[in-house]
Amino acid sequence: MAWKNTKDLELRERAQKVIPGGMYGHQSTVLLPDGYPQFFARAEGTRLWDADGNSYIDYMCAYGPNLFGYGHAEIDDAAIAQLRRGDAMTGPSPLIVELAEAFVRMVTHADWAIFCKNGTDATTMALTIARAHTGKRKVLTATGAYHGAAPWCTPRPAGTVAEDRAHLVHFTYNDIASLEAAVKSVGEDLAAIFAAPFKHDAFQDQQLPTREYANRVREICDKTGALLVVDDVRAGLRLARDCSWSLVDVKPDLSTWGKAIANGHPISALLGSEKARAAAQAIYVTGSYWFAAAAMAAAVKTLEFVRESDYLEHTETMGRRLREGLQQQAAAHGFTLRQTGPAQMPQILFDDDPDFRKGFAWTQAALKRGVYLHPWHNMFICAALTEGHVSETLAATDAAFETVKKRLPTLKPHPVVAQLFSGH
Amino acid sequence: MAWKNTKDLELRERAQKVIPGGMYGHQSTVLLPDGYPQFFARAEGTRLWDADGNSYIDYMCAYGPNLFGYGHAEIDDAAIAQLRRGDAMTGPSPLIVELAEAFVRMVTHADWAIFCKNGTDATTMALTIARAHTGKRKVLTATGAYHGAAPWCTPRPAGTVAEDRAHLVHFTYNDIASLEAAVKSVGEDLAAIFAAPFKHDAFQDQQLPTREYANRVREICDKTGALLVVDDVRAGLRLARDCSWSLVDVKPDLSTWGKAIANGHPISALLGSEKARAAAQAIYVTGSYWFAAAAMAAAVKTLEFVRESDYLEHTETMGRRLREGLQQQAAAHGFTLRQTGPAQMPQILFDDDPDFRKGFAWTQAALKRGVYLHPWHNMFICAALTEGHVSETLAATDAAFETVKKRLPTLKPHPVVAQLFSGH
Repeated sequence: MAWKNTKDLELRERAQKVIPGGMYGHQSTVLLPDGYPQFFARAEGTRLWDADGNSYIDYMCAYGPNLFGYGHAEIDDAAIAQLRRGDAMTGPSPLIVELAEAFVRMVTHADWAIFCKNGTDATTMALTIARAHTGKRKVLTATGAYHGAAPWCTPRPAGTVAEDRAHLVHFTYNDIASLEAAVKSVGEDLAAIFAAPFKHDAFQDQQLPTREYANRVREICDKTGALLVVDDVRAGLRLARDCSWSLVDVKPDLSTWGKAIANGHPISALLGSEKARAAAQAIYVTGSYWFAAAAMAAAVKTLEFVRESDYLEHTETMGRRLREGLQQQAAAHGFTLRQTGPAQMPQILFDDDPDFRKGFAWTQAALKRGVYLHPWHNMFICAALTEGHVSETLAATDAAFETVKKRLPTLKPHPVVAQLFSGH
Repeated sequence: MAWKNTKDLELRERAQKVIPGGMYGHQSTVLLPDGYPQFFARAEGTRLWDADGNSYIDYMCAYGPNLFGYGHAEIDDAAIAQLRRGDAMTGPSPLIVELAEAFVRMVTHADWAIFCKNGTDATTMALTIARAHTGKRKVLTATGAYHGAAPWCTPRPAGTVAEDRAHLVHFTYNDIASLEAAVKSVGEDLAAIFAAPFKHDAFQDQQLPTREYANRVREICDKTGALLVVDDVRAGLRLARDCSWSLVDVKPDLSTWGKAIANGHPISALLGSEKARAAAQAIYVTGSYWFAAAAMAAAVKTLEFVRESDYLEHTETMGRRLREGLQQQAAAHGFTLRQTGPAQMPQILFDDDPDFRKGFAWTQAALKRGVYLHPWHNMFICAALTEGHVSETLAATDAAFETVKKRLPTLKPHPVVAQLFSGH
């Protein structure tokens, strides 16, 4: 069946009328190559179908939530059974206790949990708890690290006021001198250091933390009394069956979770150590659906699969297989790829591609061949991805490299991306 | 079956270990009478079952989300069917357009919609859009009005910094002189006025807006260019099949929605007028699950029932019947009740009860007789409540009045509430 996008275009026209800009947030296609579908009708395992019926092997996993495959029968069955018994009620169900216990058993640093709905809820709670715990105000985050979309952290400051970021100070990820300079600049007023589990900023190569850097962050927090927060919303459960910084043997005081923890069902979490419990109890945070039980049933079941399956090893193996195949293909076509970060959360950028025109052309060509890749955001590999899918993917990407090579002289940068990198 | 709470107590003990303070947020029972269950196992229609199997006619409706009855078959079926097709995917489903269109058709002032997960997401977006639209900073809210639990609005300031509220200014609800003084105090810097649809503050009598007050808010916004925001998260769809201020013929520029709009499925919304569209497009807001389709399917179905059923008239009738019955019972037992606000969102306080000891004793006695009332928060009546339920409720409350009368000389205030009102 030939690729088509008639229905997607019709839906976009309708959306332009009733949704600002036609779509908002990270799932808007405004920064993606032409032809990327805005709307999806169906998802199963590792496959997506757009509104026109085109199907794709999906490497975005809903930007993270899909860990065990879309529509995972046992996880969804657990959610549905609980929905039929009771979801949003006048109080939480016993599942909140069961889920908190399961999470705290799995995450070494954690003694307690608070559940919420957005990753941003969890990071904002972490900020608030750190300030309540220390009585101090300054919060350090790595330049360019994404910690959510509330006024204090949104990457686009329209509509925010200077006060929203009054006490935020930035440093360079993995750069101890920069970290120490930032710490020094805040004097006695340090409340928290936010650590991305690894550097997974958009449009950039990914970077794993060095042990020296991670240890230094911990030492500074121990010395000053500030809380160390690992923001594991995006990477949590994808690198380890524990907090991602367990890989560098550093325990945070707080960690934030979301996305994969219920395989797509809407729930996020803040986990904390004993030290931060009193402050967590002192703040007031809540939300209309934070106590709803169906997503908690899905999370309990997801954590079971995390503990009892080889999903982690499998996604890493599949990620490596894809990475090696792409590296060979790129070389064969005369391109150099920069494939960075954990294999199961691949970031794939073209060398010598400052305005991303090669990456856009390549992902666009792969899309038309049934493979949904992202030209500038890290991707995700779910446990439903098989060797067969990887082979299918590599057949598409091989043709896509060929297309880019042919089109190279006439490629132009995406207008919105060009504007983004022109300093305007 | 005798009322018991063995399992609830066991769960509380386990929760104490893994959840700060045993529970957080608005569904914690810390400010409720002794014996109120913390955990619920099941919900159906207008009935709740706690973890011990005690059943209650529920007048809290999950603090708002339950509009058509818990476990409403057609609404839940719509959500489940969509969950099986695809929920959180790499892009939204066509349902986001359908839902936005349905909402915009129903809400007179609205031309566009953004969907999110918490009421606080919607109110924070409204604040941000107003600032982006006006280029100004000051935001007026009524003293004591609840607009969410982010640092800028949470009722308990632990862990927040002065800057979080730097540009918030308060006035007295329904008091035009107070409103005008607040407006004057901010000079040329007014970005928005937040209006509660009616005054529904905890621990207080409810108050409907006067037409003069609502009109004056609109006039001030028109004159200054500030945006008028009606925060309809709690009351939306319960007073009208439109924004609640349609009842006073005033159109806001932005309105915030949540709770009842998907009968408990997790989705909230910001609706806006044409004037605010460009600003809404300029800000960056998003969340991991904001585009998930299952809750949107539930919302589409809920709005259908809103348009096509007599739920609104029915809940009002049931609310009036309850109100009249209680008024007679109170008088017969020598008490005076203050029953305020819309009948379908009743606030029931005892006269001459400054520390709420009578209200606590009365709701506690009703609880033991199978009726879940709230001693200081407005309640909610759902469409599944029947005349039979009201009669059953009145039988329980009659006995509860009798109990309070007997216990009156020995009643003591709830220790946490006493502390709250002692100025500590």
